[in-house]
Amino acid sequence: MLKQMAQLLSRAPRNRLIAVTNGFQSQRKFQLDTSAWHHAKVELTSKRYPIRRGDFSQINPRDIEYFRGLLDSHRVITEENELEGYNTDWLRTVRGVSSVVLKPRTTEEVVTIMKHCSERKLAVCPQGGNTGLVGGSVPVFDEVVVSTALMNKIESLDELSGVMVCQSGCVLETLDNYLSENGLMMPLDLGAKGSCHIGGNVSTNAGGLRLLRYGSLHGSVLGLEAVLASGEVVDCLSSLKKDNTGYDLKHLFIGSEGTLGIVTKVAIQCPTKPRSVTLAFLGLESFDDVLNTFKECKAKLGEILSSCEFIDASSMECVTQNLNLKSPIEPYPFYMLIEAAGSNGDHDEEKLNNFLEETMGSGMVSDGTVSSEPSRMMTLWALRERIAEALLHDGYTYKYDISIPLLDFYKVVEDMRERLGDSVVRCCGYGHVGDGNLHLNITTREYDQEIFHRIEPFVYERTSQVKGSISAEHGLGFKKRNYIGYSKSDNAVHLMKQLKKMMDPQGILNPYKVLPE
Amino acid sequence: MLKQMAQLLSRAPRNRLIAVTNGFQSQRKFQLDTSAWHHAKVELTSKRYPIRRGDFSQINPRDIEYFRGLLDSHRVITEENELEGYNTDWLRTVRGVSSVVLKPRTTEEVVTIMKHCSERKLAVCPQGGNTGLVGGSVPVFDEVVVSTALMNKIESLDELSGVMVCQSGCVLETLDNYLSENGLMMPLDLGAKGSCHIGGNVSTNAGGLRLLRYGSLHGSVLGLEAVLASGEVVDCLSSLKKDNTGYDLKHLFIGSEGTLGIVTKVAIQCPTKPRSVTLAFLGLESFDDVLNTFKECKAKLGEILSSCEFIDASSMECVTQNLNLKSPIEPYPFYMLIEAAGSNGDHDEEKLNNFLEETMGSGMVSDGTVSSEPSRMMTLWALRERIAEALLHDGYTYKYDISIPLLDFYKVVEDMRERLGDSVVRCCGYGHVGDGNLHLNITTREYDQEIFHRIEPFVYERTSQVKGSISAEHGLGFKKRNYIGYSKSDNAVHLMKQLKKMMDPQGILNPYKVLPE
Repeated sequence: MLKQMAQLLSRAPRNRLIAVTNGFQSQRKFQLDTSAWHHAKVELTSKRYPIRRGDFSQINPRDIEYFRGLLDSHRVITEENELEGYNTDWLRTVRGVSSVVLKPRTTEEVVTIMKHCSERKLAVCPQGGNTGLVGGSVPVFDEVVVSTALMNKIESLDELSGVMVCQSGCVLETLDNYLSENGLMMPLDLGAKGSCHIGGNVSTNAGGLRLLRYGSLHGSVLGLEAVLASGEVVDCLSSLKKDNTGYDLKHLFIGSEGTLGIVTKVAIQCPTKPRSVTLAFLGLESFDDVLNTFKECKAKLGEILSSCEFIDASSMECVTQNLNLKSPIEPYPFYMLIEAAGSNGDHDEEKLNNFLEETMGSGMVSDGTVSSEPSRMMTLWALRERIAEALLHDGYTYKYDISIPLLDFYKVVEDMRERLGDSVVRCCGYGHVGDGNLHLNITTREYDQEIFHRIEPFVYERTSQVKGSISAEHGLGFKKRNYIGYSKSDNAVHLMKQLKKMMDPQGILNPYKVLPE
Repeated sequence: MLKQMAQLLSRAPRNRLIAVTNGFQSQRKFQLDTSAWHHAKVELTSKRYPIRRGDFSQINPRDIEYFRGLLDSHRVITEENELEGYNTDWLRTVRGVSSVVLKPRTTEEVVTIMKHCSERKLAVCPQGGNTGLVGGSVPVFDEVVVSTALMNKIESLDELSGVMVCQSGCVLETLDNYLSENGLMMPLDLGAKGSCHIGGNVSTNAGGLRLLRYGSLHGSVLGLEAVLASGEVVDCLSSLKKDNTGYDLKHLFIGSEGTLGIVTKVAIQCPTKPRSVTLAFLGLESFDDVLNTFKECKAKLGEILSSCEFIDASSMECVTQNLNLKSPIEPYPFYMLIEAAGSNGDHDEEKLNNFLEETMGSGMVSDGTVSSEPSRMMTLWALRERIAEALLHDGYTYKYDISIPLLDFYKVVEDMRERLGDSVVRCCGYGHVGDGNLHLNITTREYDQEIFHRIEPFVYERTSQVKGSISAEHGLGFKKRNYIGYSKSDNAVHLMKQLKKMMDPQGILNPYKVLPE
């Protein structure tokens, strides 16, 4: 059957290769049906975690009046019902009690807001699409939420150089669609693309599905503009590919999760949109086969390899059972999604064929399906991209996003599974194997403190032993900040604290996040 | 003839395409014949530029004794003859008067050196291969030179992930050769590869010929270790592709030219070595043709495009006359080198063919030659890579390395040429057009203050008008630091100064560099 598939691939018109069907049709990959688990209020963060409010001022009616004078009234939100979404994270695991959300449209408005908050010593929580997974984008106590939702203008696009400049509140998918019309694409793609803001992506150094090909945002972001805690603007909005004039300050704001400044504009290098994209969905018998297949796709697909993802059986079970999606192949212990994207469809097909013949012929891949038809590829991608959502249907998710050297990669999931036994609903692993990035997830019906303590700090110790990272792409936010020592040296943390102190002496920007207590 | 060439390309065995011969055969691209211009001592920096020595201690015999106790005696250089090379830059335009060069082998030795210098308030000039072009790698006064020449160990290579860890004194070409044996390559390549150190590359955020394909070092460097002015080690030597645990401190050391810390180790992501490489050397009638050809090669070569360089007639004249190299084609106003590298030679050839047919058929390319035979490609590359060396034979070189938006790109050279008339030997332009990076060079028989003032600050004003960068890849070093304001805002420069103050309160690390007086 597999030989057949490879042969089919070289002969059949692309959209008739192997039929895959299921119900996933939405263009927006991140639309959640929250009805099943959205019934009760989330417990307050300050109740679940032992933490004391910082020495900040409390917001008062004169502050609100000041903000109303600055912004139109509908851009100053104080209604409790409306506030709930801004106070609660997407995973519904943490909740703050902010009493005001501000929605500036311009950098100047952000400057005025920050000047006021700085003078009054009011703490601020910058918020983009609020799709973060570590509690970094919601207030812990009563921080003023500064939302970038209305800062959504695309300022310029240079088609020749591929550089786009936009405000930080632009939604990732909107940008990708706009670029697509101009033969370009965003250098990053992630499950939350329909909701997340580019400013949030930059502030958290978001990784995602295309990092393997296009690298991290430290490489693709050419420039940015940020507003400091004091209200000062740092203008590093260069749209040049090369600029070695002084310290490259933009990197201070990439990945610092809004604790050093609020990103207001971004200049980003956008790659040419590939003319041909093909996705292979493969079934494999062992994790060794996964690693060998990764090695083989690097060699055989070379410069057209654009994604290399893996899913274990338990993750697949979750997404098929909880969301009613259908796997295109019989059950296997492991699955891989390997995407090839290039400028010449015939060449790409031949390369993919060579790869499939090799991996199937040698038995490292046991079954699979291939498509380059857009809606079918989306259906296949949904099996990977909607796992996070599917897990929420189990109840409570304990979420770990770790970098692990490939030789130890899946062992971590197995060890955790053995440790937890049947005390949990599920312990599964999936993620960006091509980047050494594992999403380890454990679910229980409800949050359980005892289970929590059996997972943490064990998972961090285990990661640290193999010199991995306790947060590959999600950041530290509120939930993981106290574990920074598992991945960073004391000297490095000390230098980070000095940086924070220098750039935000009152500590008003996204307090309780990133740096340890 | 051009149609013919494209046809030839698709039929002929690769090494017989179009014969190109000249005398350049060396593997080391950076071997200089300095006999012609190496006769006299370079004028002291402190004489040519009005500058006052900082408030640092003077080195005394007890310091030398201390260093001799720490390092073997041959690693403490104090002989005047031996010192000269460390005191003078490669361009022979600046010269310091350091009386001691230290050659540590380990991070621990660098730590001890810096602790001593910090306690004694001795200024330090870190030096790699001393191939910098802005006077950043040589002392201005009597700074202690800390050379990484003996820190040249490769520590590890993970063939699967492509991550190499090495000490900062490894020579770029040595690393590239080592990787080549393992099917990998360095993500950067530059004319100085035979001499420059990876630590210097990282500290100056070196660009070069492969940036177009593999991006900047902010993307490829996964981790590093640096020693601060105080002697503290900052260990960010992660070899993980993804690690979002706290502020990404490594970026502070990438491109800060040794003013914030001495880079001692580097972990770098190395791409797979392409199986096929082909180089097209083209002649064009106008700069518009150059831009259109760039656009076309982006479209037709897509993911296999690995370099896009241009040379103007005056630069070509310089390299052929001064170094006796031969152009493979008749004279044209402009030349381009377009390199394609990929995993499948047949596919790459077909793509290149499509590109050549399009550009030649439409007349945007007037003549050319193509080769994938290594020694011939090297011969062709020499015409581009040895321009810097050829210019030195004219006498004194006024060197500008600027980023300019493509539409204004060559206009800057023309304007400068008109401004200077026949008062100079040469005013020429070449460089990384695919990255918007122009090397503008002017030569005179000897340094001439009047000419200098006709060039500067005019060239910076002109660059600033079109929102370019006054230093694309060379950095600011000593020579360009006072012009930072043409490319960076006051707020940004202020923040840089705060950073410097925080990380090196005594200002002992590479003083008089990067930040303005």
